[in-house]
Amino acid sequence: MLESGPVAVLGATGVVGTELLRMISQRGIPAEDVRAMASGGESSVAYGAGLIPVHPVREQVFDDVRTVFLAAGAEASRTWTPIALAAGCDVIDTSSAHRMDPDVPLVIPEVNGEELDRLKASPRLVANPNCSTILLLMALTPLHRSWGCERIVVSTYQAVSGAGAAAMDELRTQTRSMLDGDRIVSECFGEPCAFNVFSHDSAIDASTGRNGEEQKMLQETARIWNADVPVSATCVRVPVLRSHTESIHVELGTATTVEAVRSAITAFPGVSVIDDRAANDFPTPWKASDGDLVLVGRIRMAADARLQSDGRGDRFEMLCSMDQLRKGAALNAIQLAEGLKSI
Amino acid sequence: MLESGPVAVLGATGVVGTELLRMISQRGIPAEDVRAMASGGESSVAYGAGLIPVHPVREQVFDDVRTVFLAAGAEASRTWTPIALAAGCDVIDTSSAHRMDPDVPLVIPEVNGEELDRLKASPRLVANPNCSTILLLMALTPLHRSWGCERIVVSTYQAVSGAGAAAMDELRTQTRSMLDGDRIVSECFGEPCAFNVFSHDSAIDASTGRNGEEQKMLQETARIWNADVPVSATCVRVPVLRSHTESIHVELGTATTVEAVRSAITAFPGVSVIDDRAANDFPTPWKASDGDLVLVGRIRMAADARLQSDGRGDRFEMLCSMDQLRKGAALNAIQLAEGLKSI
Repeated sequence: MLESGPVAVLGATGVVGTELLRMISQRGIPAEDVRAMASGGESSVAYGAGLIPVHPVREQVFDDVRTVFLAAGAEASRTWTPIALAAGCDVIDTSSAHRMDPDVPLVIPEVNGEELDRLKASPRLVANPNCSTILLLMALTPLHRSWGCERIVVSTYQAVSGAGAAAMDELRTQTRSMLDGDRIVSECFGEPCAFNVFSHDSAIDASTGRNGEEQKMLQETARIWNADVPVSATCVRVPVLRSHTESIHVELGTATTVEAVRSAITAFPGVSVIDDRAANDFPTPWKASDGDLVLVGRIRMAADARLQSDGRGDRFEMLCSMDQLRKGAALNAIQLAEGLKSI
Repeated sequence: MLESGPVAVLGATGVVGTELLRMISQRGIPAEDVRAMASGGESSVAYGAGLIPVHPVREQVFDDVRTVFLAAGAEASRTWTPIALAAGCDVIDTSSAHRMDPDVPLVIPEVNGEELDRLKASPRLVANPNCSTILLLMALTPLHRSWGCERIVVSTYQAVSGAGAAAMDELRTQTRSMLDGDRIVSECFGEPCAFNVFSHDSAIDASTGRNGEEQKMLQETARIWNADVPVSATCVRVPVLRSHTESIHVELGTATTVEAVRSAITAFPGVSVIDDRAANDFPTPWKASDGDLVLVGRIRMAADARLQSDGRGDRFEMLCSMDQLRKGAALNAIQLAEGLKSI
């Protein structure tokens, strides 16, 4: 519930912005207290049962706003963050612009929510981690707390919506063209996305060979856990519209059992365990989409686990899915604002 | 070129059988020397520029045949292998029926082709490994030979055609229904396959938590390499019609460099390295499909590699794609027959 002053959403017509508006509406904030801003030219956007106007971003808007959600990309975040802070706003940035700034907390509330306490009074700036990092750490933090994660190997199955609404349209259009035997057009990615999988479309560092998404998972994990845990990530796009999946292999500092791992994950907030071996029922993007929960399953001892005589081992595997537009972005951002008591 | 006696293909109308017939035809064997057999009810199947008749399997057929390719599933292989061998045929079994039989060589010609020499005279039986194992070992055998693979973590992105032609039809039909907003029907898998990813549809072992596909990769690697290398596999289906992809993390016994790894893979027969970091050009199912080569790229040092002072490290990663109906099944089977000089 709104405590004082309106809420602004930059990038209000994008895939994350529309989710943010949906969640702000669900929290009972009246339409007249919401400023939807975007550069795309749309004149209105859905809000609750109705529509609210969309305006281009103007500096003057922030004078009348308590909380600003930035969901218009890193460049827009770099431009508007100082202006919003100067106007006294709290700023929740879903972009990568401030994630590695040591003065800006990078927060998943369930994982390191205590970081929000560092920020005493408005104006305050908090960065929302990358969606792939959020999925990884929502699944692994219960293990890290109990047994210490020493090494992570993760392969992602990422939805095209991580690249925005245009990428979702391209997947639909390309797919239909393929089925109809028509020529396909690839504009969003360097590769066809229909019935294909390909290495994540972020730039590759020439010396490490890691792409931007993989580097984010490595660096953000170190910041959020405040621990130097190597994350060997391989980030791949799949022809899925919504929700990311990750295949995770983890080495623990202390050996334990599958049952103890499953219990720890089950007890963690924001996570739901779907792990029915007999029915082959495990997390999928379909099950995760439009939900708030991170789904975890296929929890098992890894083939290379070093077993103790009592059956405990040190390496585990799991498969996880999450709606990356919600807990990976909009929901986490809303939780951050709630943690600051700024909405 | 045929040396003596006709060739029979069981499962001639399936996804692997039709590939086998295409390759047998390309090798110049005349239509009158090919016996196409299947239980599906089709009366003919493409062969070269024409059609050849399809018959139900009959015991008498084998009396007139030199080489039998089994591509009709494990149950059919168990039924017809002893009959074909009793008739004096060489048998190449693409199913899982004989893969773990210590008396039957399990062979990828580039990897352990010398195993074929154990078989002196017809009748001979050779098993074709599982497609996911073939992709893994085509990529890793050059590393194993030079530096020793001690531990493998692999996540798969498997095409639905691994489950046959009906699964390909289901992916197309479901996808169109989704795009049209119609109700979808799932018959081949326990999950929707359109715009979804899900844990491989093989049964899960209750004690290890591994599914059948993951167990095959573990056990077949041990047999083919004759080494107890733990393979921690997570097998996942993706909405791709054809060609499997694998994200591989490997720990080597001896440290080396990315350049040396890339050179070793480049020099290995049957493999093509696609690894252009600047252009983000790497293996995909699209690039692998309808080709004979295993594609390998994203070759890099893993984030958790233990670095030596000279920059060499012990853990590497790569992304690989392969047409699993060709090198993963039909092409490998043809190579086996050629290795036996039975076609």
